[in-house]
Amino acid sequence: MSNIKIAQKVQNLQSSAIRELLKHSKMEGVISLGGGIPNPDLFDHEGLQIAMDKVLTHAWKDAFQYGLSEGDPGLRQLICQLLLKRTIICDVDDVIVTSGSQQSLDIVARALINPGDIVVVEKPTYLAALQIFQLAEAEFVSVGTDADGMIVDELEQLVEKTCIKAVYIVPTFGNPGGVTLSDERRKRLVELSRRYNFVIIEDDPYGEINFTNETFKPLRAYAKEMDNTENVIYTSTFSKILTPGARVGWVIVPDWLKKAVVNLKQATDLHTSALSQSLTYHYLLTGRLGNQIEIIRASYKQKCQILSEQLEKELGDHLTFHKPKGGMFLWARFKYEMNTTKWLSKTLSQGVVYVPGEFFYCNQPDCSTLRMSYVTVSDAHLKEAVLRLKHSLNALPS
Amino acid sequence: MSNIKIAQKVQNLQSSAIRELLKHSKMEGVISLGGGIPNPDLFDHEGLQIAMDKVLTHAWKDAFQYGLSEGDPGLRQLICQLLLKRTIICDVDDVIVTSGSQQSLDIVARALINPGDIVVVEKPTYLAALQIFQLAEAEFVSVGTDADGMIVDELEQLVEKTCIKAVYIVPTFGNPGGVTLSDERRKRLVELSRRYNFVIIEDDPYGEINFTNETFKPLRAYAKEMDNTENVIYTSTFSKILTPGARVGWVIVPDWLKKAVVNLKQATDLHTSALSQSLTYHYLLTGRLGNQIEIIRASYKQKCQILSEQLEKELGDHLTFHKPKGGMFLWARFKYEMNTTKWLSKTLSQGVVYVPGEFFYCNQPDCSTLRMSYVTVSDAHLKEAVLRLKHSLNALPS
Repeated sequence: MSNIKIAQKVQNLQSSAIRELLKHSKMEGVISLGGGIPNPDLFDHEGLQIAMDKVLTHAWKDAFQYGLSEGDPGLRQLICQLLLKRTIICDVDDVIVTSGSQQSLDIVARALINPGDIVVVEKPTYLAALQIFQLAEAEFVSVGTDADGMIVDELEQLVEKTCIKAVYIVPTFGNPGGVTLSDERRKRLVELSRRYNFVIIEDDPYGEINFTNETFKPLRAYAKEMDNTENVIYTSTFSKILTPGARVGWVIVPDWLKKAVVNLKQATDLHTSALSQSLTYHYLLTGRLGNQIEIIRASYKQKCQILSEQLEKELGDHLTFHKPKGGMFLWARFKYEMNTTKWLSKTLSQGVVYVPGEFFYCNQPDCSTLRMSYVTVSDAHLKEAVLRLKHSLNALPS
Repeated sequence: MSNIKIAQKVQNLQSSAIRELLKHSKMEGVISLGGGIPNPDLFDHEGLQIAMDKVLTHAWKDAFQYGLSEGDPGLRQLICQLLLKRTIICDVDDVIVTSGSQQSLDIVARALINPGDIVVVEKPTYLAALQIFQLAEAEFVSVGTDADGMIVDELEQLVEKTCIKAVYIVPTFGNPGGVTLSDERRKRLVELSRRYNFVIIEDDPYGEINFTNETFKPLRAYAKEMDNTENVIYTSTFSKILTPGARVGWVIVPDWLKKAVVNLKQATDLHTSALSQSLTYHYLLTGRLGNQIEIIRASYKQKCQILSEQLEKELGDHLTFHKPKGGMFLWARFKYEMNTTKWLSKTLSQGVVYVPGEFFYCNQPDCSTLRMSYVTVSDAHLKEAVLRLKHSLNALPS
């Protein structure tokens, strides 16, 4: 064994719990509510084939060659058009293509964070973001959430006393919490970012998967209206609406951060797969994305409905939750003291897994919580999964 | 303008000179010897089409879905087989798929380097590696090179006195120097790594592009023979032999480093494009890679020959260089004092660009050097490029 040491800051880096759970979820007969992956049955195979045919016929020399670190200008233009539908107004120059939201966050963290800088996250928050900010040697402070998302009053009390660098937030159909920040709070959060000079990192992978008729305007859109785009970084991805395997996402960064982000993107991996970018570009040109999003919305909405109703019916005495308005996750809490991490071995023996909630906290975890994804599970299995959870509960020593 | 500061360590991060030069190289009428890109006319369009057809017919659900951070097991298995031909023996578990060598280096640097750790590089060295180690806050020490690559005597003198963390080296057909480390020095370097407890980071993107009948055994192969694989990290890529646009490379890491590298890969971008990996896997299955490498070898060898002869004929009184035994680059030095960065504006006005050598040094640059890539330039343009360089020289004030 070598005596050479790995770097200090990676010594405590854990592989995510989800990664471990994926192993269980592949076990014969186990129903997994643990995944964070989209439903592959809904991939637009035909549309992607049409797009790839265009790539290989007309664009292959560019698709197989090195490209620009910022990303393909044509794709960036189409992303701007897509963002207009989300009420976000930005220029091609503001958009930098990344290999998915995960990379957007990693690059932004590396560009922004000095060791010891304070990053505020939601309680609970996306655990892979915690990994990234931990790598950047940030300090975490968490702020509570309720049915209307992050409790911005609590944030205000914090920033009055403490200098923070950034707020990381999934404001719309959050992962894992499933809640959505209210319009009122969105405006106040953007105001606070200017007044107290911090950055908002708005992570929006799920915004299009809306089960309601309401619109939820991104923080970046409010920031534009309030002439405050300097304080908001917005990241999104094609992973949940088209394909995660191609690894194409993007980030909108303010002018003062652009050079650092592009230089970091270059240092990290030169550029995102030109093949994946070309595929995405030609897919967007087919005009099929709108319909594709409708298909995903309808399917996930129905599955969310089935899971919610079954949970209320079978476990309503035990669990409380906010019914999601969109997205991929339902977050529930036991009405009494419970350790969902320990409970997992019981539910696994009954043939059902979820992600224990404690992994989604930077500190003081609420161990009575759990995250359930409904999107890859058949309707019948969703109902069965809840029954198995109920049996696991009955199997507990009283 | 916001008052928020970017991170300290990225403040001095420069975008690479090559990036800037690519702008010139696209100017009408300019012959570019400045690029670092493979010749797109040699891409195996037919083979890649056949492979993509397999992906879209038989493997699309996996190719469009999230995958494992380590990479696709089938692809990793085929990479092991490919490596056997390079005399490298390793297990599937040793191979981690990355989004190109650049990402391999970034992840390895993040996994290994604590601020202030000393990294030894060649004089000259690959400038994007300098960026990466700079980001990891390493200190650089450079060691000279001659026709046989890094002068290992000089390294030995250094490590006797100074504790170093790693040696970064492109031992075979180096970029930019174009030289190849001798067998004798390869063995001694591996010995030194054990005796003085440092890591060798062997970067091997060009090893297959061999213009000779000699074989150049990778350091990783010597390390296995000498039972010292703990001290050697090996990275390579499909960028120069198949397609750079798909962004598929890999890294072989010793056991003690594996967990850190996989966790970092996950934190960085979850995994490399599953689409690109599936394409590469199915391409390798076609059995066409061997022939493809032969085509690239023959073409690049001929172009290297043309450039070398023309340089000797037209600029032999001015320039000295080691004729490359393989790879993509010819590195030359003026026989007298010269500043090739300043000269570039003159050659540009004559319609030819190269990369000034000074960008490839971590300190004390030799400004009389320049790097020329011959691989994307037509035979006639290679000859014309040298004539234009000659004219640029004659246009200098005497």
